[in-house]
Amino acid sequence: LIHGLDHLAIAVEDLDVAVEQWRTVAGAVVLHREVVVEQKVRVVMLRVGTLQIELLAPTSPDSPVAKFLAKRGPGLHHVALRVDSTQTELDRLSAADVRLIDRSARRGAEETQVGFVHPQAVGGVLVEFVEHGVGSER
Amino acid sequence: LIHGLDHLAIAVEDLDVAVEQWRTVAGAVVLHREVVVEQKVRVVMLRVGTLQIELLAPTSPDSPVAKFLAKRGPGLHHVALRVDSTQTELDRLSAADVRLIDRSARRGAEETQVGFVHPQAVGGVLVEFVEHGVGSER
Repeated sequence: LIHGLDHLAIAVEDLDVAVEQWRTVAGAVVLHREVVVEQKVRVVMLRVGTLQIELLAPTSPDSPVAKFLAKRGPGLHHVALRVDSTQTELDRLSAADVRLIDRSARRGAEETQVGFVHPQAVGGVLVEFVEHGVGSER
Repeated sequence: LIHGLDHLAIAVEDLDVAVEQWRTVAGAVVLHREVVVEQKVRVVMLRVGTLQIELLAPTSPDSPVAKFLAKRGPGLHHVALRVDSTQTELDRLSAADVRLIDRSARRGAEETQVGFVHPQAVGGVLVEFVEHGVGSER
């Protein structure tokens, strides 16, 4: 089951500048900061009303986000959809021959299980499924 | 006041292909179709759980969406935030010397009043304010 948007992710060069811009333009509040070592990204989660925005900055030049910035510049990076089971969605799409980045769910920020669909399968949009952990409050 | 996400807009080459892709990947349902003459775009509004996605395809080569597609290819186009008053937000940002595309609210799809902030003010992300019309159910 897909519930809707979990968060919107944005690739940025400088996290502090981006936080300040989102504060000015939309009254954003910082919820959470984290480094996801496996993805080589530094993450700041913002809240704008009911919307959660994940700002992503690379921690290394070989981070996937560094490659995105080099190719496309800063901007919208992916759309994360909240699901009951990431693995169930990946299995469903795999069976339908939809091109995936991940065939198996893996760890994301804040104790989530995540998996990415290939942008070619969704008109150039990178889609992530996010399953919040057992025992999580959200 | 900014309530959160109104919708997420995605630029596409072919609306029918995109609708089918979103149906397959995320179980999207078509809510609404419209041509916005002023913006030279054909719009399909989708629902994925609680998320609304606006697919945009140009009706003419001089449409802003045609220029976006030529420059960046298909993908995420803008983030629309739901507000009580678009003009109030534009005035607030104008007074703060934030770079805007629109200084005055104008008509959007489905009887809304909309206004755009310049992407340079928000780290490469095009942000739209959306105010739903008086008498609207939403």
